[in-house]
Amino acid sequence: MKFTYNQVAGQKIQRIEALSDGVFAIALTLLVLDIKVPIGDAFKTEGDLLAALCSLMPRFLSYFLSFMTLGIFWTGHTMQFSFIEKSDRHLNWLSLFFLLFVSILPFTTAFLSEHISFRLSIAVYWLNIFALGAGLYLHWWYADKNGYTSLAGEERETVNKAVRQRIIIAQTLYAIGALLCFISNYLSITFIIIVQLNYAIAPRFSRRQKK
Amino acid sequence: MKFTYNQVAGQKIQRIEALSDGVFAIALTLLVLDIKVPIGDAFKTEGDLLAALCSLMPRFLSYFLSFMTLGIFWTGHTMQFSFIEKSDRHLNWLSLFFLLFVSILPFTTAFLSEHISFRLSIAVYWLNIFALGAGLYLHWWYADKNGYTSLAGEERETVNKAVRQRIIIAQTLYAIGALLCFISNYLSITFIIIVQLNYAIAPRFSRRQKK
Amino acid sequence: MKFTYNQVAGQKIQRIEALSDGVFAIALTLLVLDIKVPIGDAFKTEGDLLAALCSLMPRFLSYFLSFMTLGIFWTGHTMQFSFIEKSDRHLNWLSLFFLLFVSILPFTTAFLSEHISFRLSIAVYWLNIFALGAGLYLHWWYADKNGYTSLAGEERETVNKAVRQRIIIAQTLYAIGALLCFISNYLSITFIIIVQLNYAIAPRFSRRQKK
Amino acid sequence: MKFTYNQVAGQKIQRIEALSDGVFAIALTLLVLDIKVPIGDAFKTEGDLLAALCSLMPRFLSYFLSFMTLGIFWTGHTMQFSFIEKSDRHLNWLSLFFLLFVSILPFTTAFLSEHISFRLSIAVYWLNIFALGAGLYLHWWYADKNGYTSLAGEERETVNKAVRQRIIIAQTLYAIGALLCFISNYLSITFIIIVQLNYAIAPRFSRRQKK
Repeated sequence: MKFTYNQVAGQKIQRIEALSDGVFAIALTLLVLDIKVPIGDAFKTEGDLLAALCSLMPRFLSYFLSFMTLGIFWTGHTMQFSFIEKSDRHLNWLSLFFLLFVSILPFTTAFLSEHISFRLSIAVYWLNIFALGAGLYLHWWYADKNGYTSLAGEERETVNKAVRQRIIIAQTLYAIGALLCFISNYLSITFIIIVQLNYAIAPRFSRRQKK
Repeated sequence: MKFTYNQVAGQKIQRIEALSDGVFAIALTLLVLDIKVPIGDAFKTEGDLLAALCSLMPRFLSYFLSFMTLGIFWTGHTMQFSFIEKSDRHLNWLSLFFLLFVSILPFTTAFLSEHISFRLSIAVYWLNIFALGAGLYLHWWYADKNGYTSLAGEERETVNKAVRQRIIIAQTLYAIGALLCFISNYLSITFIIIVQLNYAIAPRFSRRQKK
Repeated sequence: MKFTYNQVAGQKIQRIEALSDGVFAIALTLLVLDIKVPIGDAFKTEGDLLAALCSLMPRFLSYFLSFMTLGIFWTGHTMQFSFIEKSDRHLNWLSLFFLLFVSILPFTTAFLSEHISFRLSIAVYWLNIFALGAGLYLHWWYADKNGYTSLAGEERETVNKAVRQRIIIAQTLYAIGALLCFISNYLSITFIIIVQLNYAIAPRFSRRQKK
Repeated sequence: MKFTYNQVAGQKIQRIEALSDGVFAIALTLLVLDIKVPIGDAFKTEGDLLAALCSLMPRFLSYFLSFMTLGIFWTGHTMQFSFIEKSDRHLNWLSLFFLLFVSILPFTTAFLSEHISFRLSIAVYWLNIFALGAGLYLHWWYADKNGYTSLAGEERETVNKAVRQRIIIAQTLYAIGALLCFISNYLSITFIIIVQLNYAIAPRFSRRQKK
């Protein structure tokens, strides 16, 4: 029965990957629904319309912020599954709960861009990022603990440490960013975007990997 | 022509899996569109905004409820396809009708969260869950009857019984949960969520599987 | 360079299949967005709410109609790709134009359910079905003409004839259904749904296939 | 560790392909949400309704325009991945930034169709197309520079040149199309659609490929 079991687990991995790609793809695209096109015949000159477009800037900002957030967590989730070979129902549900917080991100993003001057909206957004980080950490911890990855020996420890450290450092930076809202909300968002751009453009992990 | 036929059937399974993952991913994410961000300049303090956020609780509740529902039925559907090797047009359409009730869940969820104090909305929601369960049951029954699964002998009977019992017990619990609306709607929803958490967090079938 | 070319064509098939499954999955699920939940505090009794739900019947009807339409054309498209082995840019674009009419179906469906008593909305809906049928026919014709299928000899002719006849007969029935709107729109829709149920529940082609 | 690294990179390609297909599929389908069904009981004759439908023409036009745009860039992106064998985090993020501009296209399309007489909306739309082209160019440039493609020797140079030239010529034509808005916006859109139809219906690259 071992063959059958592996087959089941293997297919599950492909399915959870497909479902994840679907949820991420939709969340990435739904974000844009929050940016409403300025409607009406009130615009008389090109300048009027440009002003209306510019007034959407907070929404473009939070759109970009959330696109980066989703991109980073999708990359993290994908990276984990490049090592994970087996799965069980618990890992399946850890992925589903992770996707719960992915699918709610368009809401917290819209909440942030609608109430960008309130600290509460930074707190809610940060909670979402924190839940995504915690979900990713738990997912790896469970997969590693049960030996579901393709890693062994020293390599396992190296990757293990790298994955965990990466999440902890990122979450620490996000928490610092969120706390900056006590000075200014725009400072807070700018700091988080800089952290994210750093992860997107200069990823240290991949360089370490290549050695 | 046998090779060609198998090839056709095989590809169909991959395609119906891909379509299912797509429909589930979208249904999971569309649910959040029902949670409208409180809009306006009426919010003067952080407390005002927090109160507005808290007033969305029924919607978060039904969002969580439906996410669990979709997660459970997706897991069930995936599990069936980990055993199903062949397909025909009838099985294809049984899957499509199952997806019909998946795609309508965002409506019944929104109906429930908008009219959470009406028994009718519990009834409509339960009907949706019942249709999903019946669809899943029929799907397995047809696949098993026609020998489309990879199972044989004793193993086939064991899995067969486990799949059927699981659906029947779950549906019985959902029906009890729905009937609780004659006492209180919140009791009814809470009961259903507890049943779902039990299936998500402590799945008995996977433990039996591992033996 | 032959190896490279085949590789390219092969991957394209997988990608166009993935894109198609995505577009169909979204179109299937977007349809439900047209069914708006009755909102407000005007509902005092369960009966009031039930009446409001019942008044949505035309929308449920056109939702079901379009779900069947999409299911039938998805099955047809999938079936073609179970025989198609190679592709080129022209076939790629024939698929994309087919998807154009898939993605517009949620609009024609909403148009039909909003103006169910107008003959124009039947005409628009029928035009959409006709475009889907014509797209599917052209797609097969082009793939067969260029020898992109896995079929040869007698088998090729049999399948070829079956695929073409199926589309022509179905389109004839749809056209008759559309013309019935000169008697009554509901008769017209009912006729089309019966035709579709016949294709979904009793598919003749698959039986011929199995012989 | 080489095996592990290749495996990781390989899987990433499949995942980024799946995510891309998802984002494109959703963007293709979301476009239609911008075409609002004329609502109300104001329509007394079939002619009234037809007039209302005809007044949606600018929206159908920009819908068709954007469908073509997405189709062309999806085909380009797919074609690149038919040669790309390896990936790293930078290529991953180049794809993600490309998808950022895919996911924003429904917004720029809606902006164009709402303000079709403003030059600003042509400029915004063109900026989006330009960003897509630049993203595609960078993506290929990076993959080629790092030897991530399956191409070598003379073939590599031929494909390389063809891919780059194709993007540069197309972008030049789009820029000319955009500049035509100084004469007339409809001329500008018509020119861009003709360019796109040329790429969709008579693709020169595929013919060169087959030689």
